[in-house]
Amino acid sequence: MSEKLEQLKERLGEVADIGRAASVLGWDQQVNMPPGGNEARGRQLATLSKIAQEKFITDEVGRLIDDLKQELNGGNSDEAAMLRVAGRNYDKAKRVPPAFIAEQAIVSSRAFEAWVEARSKSDFSIFRPHLEKVLELVHKYISFFPPAEHPYDTLLDDYEPGMKTADVKTIFDGLRPKQVELIKAITSRKQVKDDFLYKKYNEKKLMDFGEDVISKFGYDWSRGRQDKAPHPFETTFSVNDVRITTRYEDDNPIAMLFSTMHESGHAIYEQGINPDYERTPLAGGTSLAVHESQSRMWENLVGRSLPFWEHFYPELKKTFPKQLEGVSLKSFYKAINKVEPSLIRVNADEATYNLHIMLRLELEIAMVEGNLAIKDLPEIWNTKMREYLGVTPPNDAKGVLQDIHWSGGMIGYFSTYALGNLISAQLWEKMNADIQDLDGQIRTGDFSELLGWLRKNIHQHGQKYEPQTLVENVTGSKITFEPYIRYLTKKYGEIYGL
Amino acid sequence: MSEKLEQLKERLGEVADIGRAASVLGWDQQVNMPPGGNEARGRQLATLSKIAQEKFITDEVGRLIDDLKQELNGGNSDEAAMLRVAGRNYDKAKRVPPAFIAEQAIVSSRAFEAWVEARSKSDFSIFRPHLEKVLELVHKYISFFPPAEHPYDTLLDDYEPGMKTADVKTIFDGLRPKQVELIKAITSRKQVKDDFLYKKYNEKKLMDFGEDVISKFGYDWSRGRQDKAPHPFETTFSVNDVRITTRYEDDNPIAMLFSTMHESGHAIYEQGINPDYERTPLAGGTSLAVHESQSRMWENLVGRSLPFWEHFYPELKKTFPKQLEGVSLKSFYKAINKVEPSLIRVNADEATYNLHIMLRLELEIAMVEGNLAIKDLPEIWNTKMREYLGVTPPNDAKGVLQDIHWSGGMIGYFSTYALGNLISAQLWEKMNADIQDLDGQIRTGDFSELLGWLRKNIHQHGQKYEPQTLVENVTGSKITFEPYIRYLTKKYGEIYGL
Repeated sequence: MSEKLEQLKERLGEVADIGRAASVLGWDQQVNMPPGGNEARGRQLATLSKIAQEKFITDEVGRLIDDLKQELNGGNSDEAAMLRVAGRNYDKAKRVPPAFIAEQAIVSSRAFEAWVEARSKSDFSIFRPHLEKVLELVHKYISFFPPAEHPYDTLLDDYEPGMKTADVKTIFDGLRPKQVELIKAITSRKQVKDDFLYKKYNEKKLMDFGEDVISKFGYDWSRGRQDKAPHPFETTFSVNDVRITTRYEDDNPIAMLFSTMHESGHAIYEQGINPDYERTPLAGGTSLAVHESQSRMWENLVGRSLPFWEHFYPELKKTFPKQLEGVSLKSFYKAINKVEPSLIRVNADEATYNLHIMLRLELEIAMVEGNLAIKDLPEIWNTKMREYLGVTPPNDAKGVLQDIHWSGGMIGYFSTYALGNLISAQLWEKMNADIQDLDGQIRTGDFSELLGWLRKNIHQHGQKYEPQTLVENVTGSKITFEPYIRYLTKKYGEIYGL
Repeated sequence: MSEKLEQLKERLGEVADIGRAASVLGWDQQVNMPPGGNEARGRQLATLSKIAQEKFITDEVGRLIDDLKQELNGGNSDEAAMLRVAGRNYDKAKRVPPAFIAEQAIVSSRAFEAWVEARSKSDFSIFRPHLEKVLELVHKYISFFPPAEHPYDTLLDDYEPGMKTADVKTIFDGLRPKQVELIKAITSRKQVKDDFLYKKYNEKKLMDFGEDVISKFGYDWSRGRQDKAPHPFETTFSVNDVRITTRYEDDNPIAMLFSTMHESGHAIYEQGINPDYERTPLAGGTSLAVHESQSRMWENLVGRSLPFWEHFYPELKKTFPKQLEGVSLKSFYKAINKVEPSLIRVNADEATYNLHIMLRLELEIAMVEGNLAIKDLPEIWNTKMREYLGVTPPNDAKGVLQDIHWSGGMIGYFSTYALGNLISAQLWEKMNADIQDLDGQIRTGDFSELLGWLRKNIHQHGQKYEPQTLVENVTGSKITFEPYIRYLTKKYGEIYGL
């Protein structure tokens, strides 16, 4: 390896170390920290982030990247990919002035507080001036970059490298009518029974059950752990220390199982990345959508499938004999797949979830285009909810104020959730073509071939490929909605007898 | 505040933030980390330590310290103290070349591995060449500094700023014969009964009991937490996030209570430091000995006292009625204060503990002076054990190989344990003069006046004063052994009827 490459790797390695250290501090903040620790923790995280930035955007790092790019002259090697990603991140980081980052931190922090208050009082007017300021900064952020086809492209690219707004629009425009149609068909049918899911389930037993499930998935406990936290998440301290959190909700205990499976999907991805990528920009999943494809796959395509519960339901019934007394496998399966248009995204079922996302994407694009005044947001939100899902938020808390994202300036993020769903189904079709009797394997609790397929085709590559390239390499097609619609139609056709 | 002071504080604040972040990573490593995380964690900690060092020893920081020292021209203000401590640390840090630090890290890491193996095989010859190398580096380290009265001074100063080897020698020379005499007197008496301490005690109940005790001491749970770890320790992430760990040992369950009290003493100190010192070099306890005075005070002078158990014993007996059936308060009190010359320092009782330390100090000084060949260490160790404590180690594992310190290059550290004991008794005498009926207050479980006294006289000052100055300011005398001997003589006189 050339001396310059060695040098660059050392510089980037330090930056990566600081980032991972910050992740440890962030995890601790959610999982362990006593309330008093908050203020100092904020400062410590700010310092680490500032130093990581300083260490990254030095002229030396810029020169090394340029020199090495010339030396390697493209190609498909890991080194070339590392240089591409490092160069992209470097270019982005250099364009955004530190003063802007500081301003954004302050604005977001105030916007977050206002959002908390606004949501608790269900009063959008409290949040409105802050969201206007957030949007102003979003416009300013966009202005640091060369003009794109669409201004929203600049935002999207931070979460889905290489993805264009036009691509997402095309995909969603194809998906929307089919999904609305499916939901209409479902809601015309007899609803399934699911009252038994809302009985009292022992938290410890549920947690143990979830941990047993993800052990079988292939989550490696010698390189991870699960804790409780107010919000479930996955976080990576190294390829050999990938942790998840889960939560227990009194009014929806079974959700804990699916949350554990979901986060384990993120974690299994991270645990499977080529260890040679450690401390380089290739470490970590390639994009939010591909990450979400992994979490949603284990949660939904595996964890809410009939073969899965053919294996696990007897055990669950043994663990909760009273709660599930008289509940057949089929009834349980239908219950955990109940479709019901509802107000809150995070509680949405598989069939309606994407519509929540499309609504948000449309509003974000309109805001960025300047075609939507913030003051009109609640009204337009409610109108779209009626149109897509047939429900009307009774107040802003259950409408436009439900998500945290905008208060943190995260505009451009939402579509990745829906794209993740689509990718999961694309991969699922390909896997079923490649693996003999995948359903049969799942029915016996054997996930090894499935995991092996994901390791080989997705996980190991880390950030080597951009999401569209990765998906195309593996499935032969860029991200597309057809497999997901086929999946939903087949699944809900059977459940609701369409 | 002058602009330069502002600048210096900001630079030092960043260095402090990085140090605190490293502490979070260290805590996590001991408390939570899955085994796989080890390698990356080592790298992350190395990077943080390197960056903190880089950020600290810049010419700019040096200039700011010099300019400000001239500007302030001494005095007793917090700013002047901060400059003194920053200047001292800066000077030390500048003298030690980064290449040496790297070499030391490698040598220590190998020495640690050799020590683990040597101890498990009870074979000093495995550790010997490594200890020789460690000692070589210690000599090299000393050579970076201007010649001191005694070469050992340079080492001691890192743990006890301002303390001289001659001072410690004088103190210990006075203490040794009295302590040897006391132990001889005790061992000629009838031994107390303590078999009931080694029954089976429920871990959870012991942990809860300990937490109840330290809540009454004044440990603030909104600014801390207790976890389990293989080795008990205290660690500080900010004045408002000070955590402790404890452990349960099957063969000595009650030790958990005293370990919790001990660590809470360190933590209560850290929680009580002037919050204005945050992110400055004045944050944190002033020296290891003063820190140890706080932990040993709560553990021993409070936690092994009769008034303490007059309050807590009924509760303990209610918690463990079977284990303590027929055991009177007095019998329990005597049992937890049993004196028995033994081989292992960490298990030593109050009366014998200091002799373990003196032995180590004498060996360290001889090693540093070059008057002791490493190959002769086991023999000399054993001879001194016989002389001071009347016991002979049956093997090196229970002798010269028992402590981790030397493998990590920590030479100069041990005496702080004994000095801490001495300081605790000095403070105790002064407190009893200042506080009306301290014993009576403890007997009712009221520690508020005691805590208030410590807050005012010790805790709040952080590192503003060097240890000898602090002790003299508070007690009217520098560190001295007489109060400790008075304390031991009175206590054990009563227990053993001397």
